[in-house]
Amino acid sequence: MAHSKKRHAQPPPEEKTPGKIIALLTDFGLQDAYVSSMKGVMLSINSSLNIVDITHEIQPYRIRQAAYVLWAVYNYFPQGTIFVNVVDPGVGSTRRIIVMKSKKYTFIAPDNGLLDFVVYQEKNVSSVEVTQASLKKLTTGDISSTFHGRDLIAPLAAYISNDVSIRQFGTPYQQPEVFSPFVSSRSDVAPMCVLNIDVYGNIITNLRSFEIEKSMKGIQAVSIGTNMVSKWIRYYDEAPENTPCLIVGSSGLVEISAKKNSAARFLRATLDSKLKVYWR
Amino acid sequence: MAHSKKRHAQPPPEEKTPGKIIALLTDFGLQDAYVSSMKGVMLSINSSLNIVDITHEIQPYRIRQAAYVLWAVYNYFPQGTIFVNVVDPGVGSTRRIIVMKSKKYTFIAPDNGLLDFVVYQEKNVSSVEVTQASLKKLTTGDISSTFHGRDLIAPLAAYISNDVSIRQFGTPYQQPEVFSPFVSSRSDVAPMCVLNIDVYGNIITNLRSFEIEKSMKGIQAVSIGTNMVSKWIRYYDEAPENTPCLIVGSSGLVEISAKKNSAARFLRATLDSKLKVYWR
Amino acid sequence: MAHSKKRHAQPPPEEKTPGKIIALLTDFGLQDAYVSSMKGVMLSINSSLNIVDITHEIQPYRIRQAAYVLWAVYNYFPQGTIFVNVVDPGVGSTRRIIVMKSKKYTFIAPDNGLLDFVVYQEKNVSSVEVTQASLKKLTTGDISSTFHGRDLIAPLAAYISNDVSIRQFGTPYQQPEVFSPFVSSRSDVAPMCVLNIDVYGNIITNLRSFEIEKSMKGIQAVSIGTNMVSKWIRYYDEAPENTPCLIVGSSGLVEISAKKNSAARFLRATLDSKLKVYWR
Repeated sequence: MAHSKKRHAQPPPEEKTPGKIIALLTDFGLQDAYVSSMKGVMLSINSSLNIVDITHEIQPYRIRQAAYVLWAVYNYFPQGTIFVNVVDPGVGSTRRIIVMKSKKYTFIAPDNGLLDFVVYQEKNVSSVEVTQASLKKLTTGDISSTFHGRDLIAPLAAYISNDVSIRQFGTPYQQPEVFSPFVSSRSDVAPMCVLNIDVYGNIITNLRSFEIEKSMKGIQAVSIGTNMVSKWIRYYDEAPENTPCLIVGSSGLVEISAKKNSAARFLRATLDSKLKVYWR
Repeated sequence: MAHSKKRHAQPPPEEKTPGKIIALLTDFGLQDAYVSSMKGVMLSINSSLNIVDITHEIQPYRIRQAAYVLWAVYNYFPQGTIFVNVVDPGVGSTRRIIVMKSKKYTFIAPDNGLLDFVVYQEKNVSSVEVTQASLKKLTTGDISSTFHGRDLIAPLAAYISNDVSIRQFGTPYQQPEVFSPFVSSRSDVAPMCVLNIDVYGNIITNLRSFEIEKSMKGIQAVSIGTNMVSKWIRYYDEAPENTPCLIVGSSGLVEISAKKNSAARFLRATLDSKLKVYWR
Repeated sequence: MAHSKKRHAQPPPEEKTPGKIIALLTDFGLQDAYVSSMKGVMLSINSSLNIVDITHEIQPYRIRQAAYVLWAVYNYFPQGTIFVNVVDPGVGSTRRIIVMKSKKYTFIAPDNGLLDFVVYQEKNVSSVEVTQASLKKLTTGDISSTFHGRDLIAPLAAYISNDVSIRQFGTPYQQPEVFSPFVSSRSDVAPMCVLNIDVYGNIITNLRSFEIEKSMKGIQAVSIGTNMVSKWIRYYDEAPENTPCLIVGSSGLVEISAKKNSAARFLRATLDSKLKVYWR
């Protein structure tokens, strides 16, 4: 139930190497040409890429939501995947672009907190801060001040996929220390919050459960706004009708869920709702 | 006009075999990490897969809508495609996971009716019920009780794409007999219903038309709620303004359509609207 | 800042040629089986295709919005990309299907104006009008009168990707002369309009800026409905709170933008809003 490391054996080596995987996470939506411009740029540099969408429906500018979604998914991707993350309200200002390597993966993102959950999970990472000078070498055209995803980050990712060393693109960068974004016991200091509201209206909290039995015993209730939720269930269909319940979701986080219904609508929850946990 | 078998000649055999196709149909939406987790898991097991989205915007838990969409699309895919279908309100309960083979395709889904339209269309299929024991062999990590799409169905599909026999994963399963989900004459017993409302607001019914001339002669009107629709058109642009019309859509089903307008909004239709056909 | 030609060097030639790219632009949405039917058909004819979605969320029947999005993105794709465009309110009527070749790309679309922005940009193109006779040779099954995207355009694109000459599919067609869809000086005749409203609520106009300094000096204000917008910014984050501003966006067009907010909602703008530019 807990957020486990990728659990599947690697495939046997093959003669034909398939293209590198780039996994793309943005708040661009799918309605405009933003995502496909980035894909076009990347395929122009490395035509054998396999580009997989994580999601493009992060709520506009919601960096923490993006950080959570990236954390929830990255470990399920094959070794060598390059994660390209663009939720970037500061585009064109002085914020930095970071390339970070963990043991198995590479991550590219603005330095606005988007990688915080992964940094917390991975501990051992090494990063470079991409320099203006190296970025200019990447592209032969103009760089807009409004769309670095297309003009800087996409070519950067594609060159990295062509095995250009990340040292080529910048100077070493020390990730700031990251405290746990999760609450798993009475002594944790992170403020409780809503990390995501999923398509079913499940409210995903940052309350982390390593063992469901322990959570059910330890947590008496969670309040959201003026509502109190205290009934625990083990799978969604177990919930009684019209009763928001607590459940440990597929990333090991406590969710508030309502049977065949949107708990978020029922409880008028948003990403900004105030949460409180009542320990037994 | 009728729902025809795939109509294109197969390409000549090539030297380089492209990756197997997995076609993915869920109600997960695209906003969360659910779909991409499944893709990551599948690519970790078989990195040469070509994963194609059918849709992830089935309305939450709407199994019949999913069954219809799968039926409307599957025959257009290349032989050998593996269809992975996850609309699964019963996840974590005792519902079974089924792997079904037709002459050309493989289908994976919970046994909740999602495959009914295909079973009706194909007649000759053979299935296995995936057993807990074989599922445990599939994965080396924990299995959540809330996301079998990622933890069971995705690895199952990827192993099948690696040519592991489906017999390895379960015991033979006899699909229950399926009656026609369509109404095509006065004598048909299936209740009339709305199968889908498409992006344009066309209301797609389960009234099946094998020949448009015969349908136009045989069907006087269709009522939806308290509204009666009786004007037939042959193509969308032929409709008069502000008049919902009957048309035979691209899967051979009768639709209610309004010119450059949403018939569903016009008629306040939903997937639960009551329909009735008036034969001449 | 201006809409530049693709700016990245082509990759070195490789031994293994990756599949041809088909870029898909429609108003089909992602909720139905329409897009995936087209993909299934194309992969059945050419299984090595790399199909990339531009967007499927063009507002229903909004041809100009589609023409703009195609123009904004096409130059970022690799040489040889085949652009398949289906916003087709006239499907089944007498409108033509056109295949157009520019120096680097191939475009397929109904002749309803969808290619106008590209024709204006490219100047040198050659086109064929696809004939009924040649279309019938493409398919061995029925052709619906409601979904030519699946039944005609998808197989056409896939055969073209297999290096069948476009001359095989029709007779030469002379694109009508296209006037500039953009306004870049006082003397331009194109009416001002909203080309797109993006996911952030930025209102993208057809006011084209080749140099931001010149635009800032030359344009005093833009009115939309009864509102006047006159403050210029260089990047989104520079905007003051609660003040819609003018900015040159990533395609070199003037946008109306509001900081971390939807300018479109703020100003109640739609694709039909009336715009006026006030030159200094």
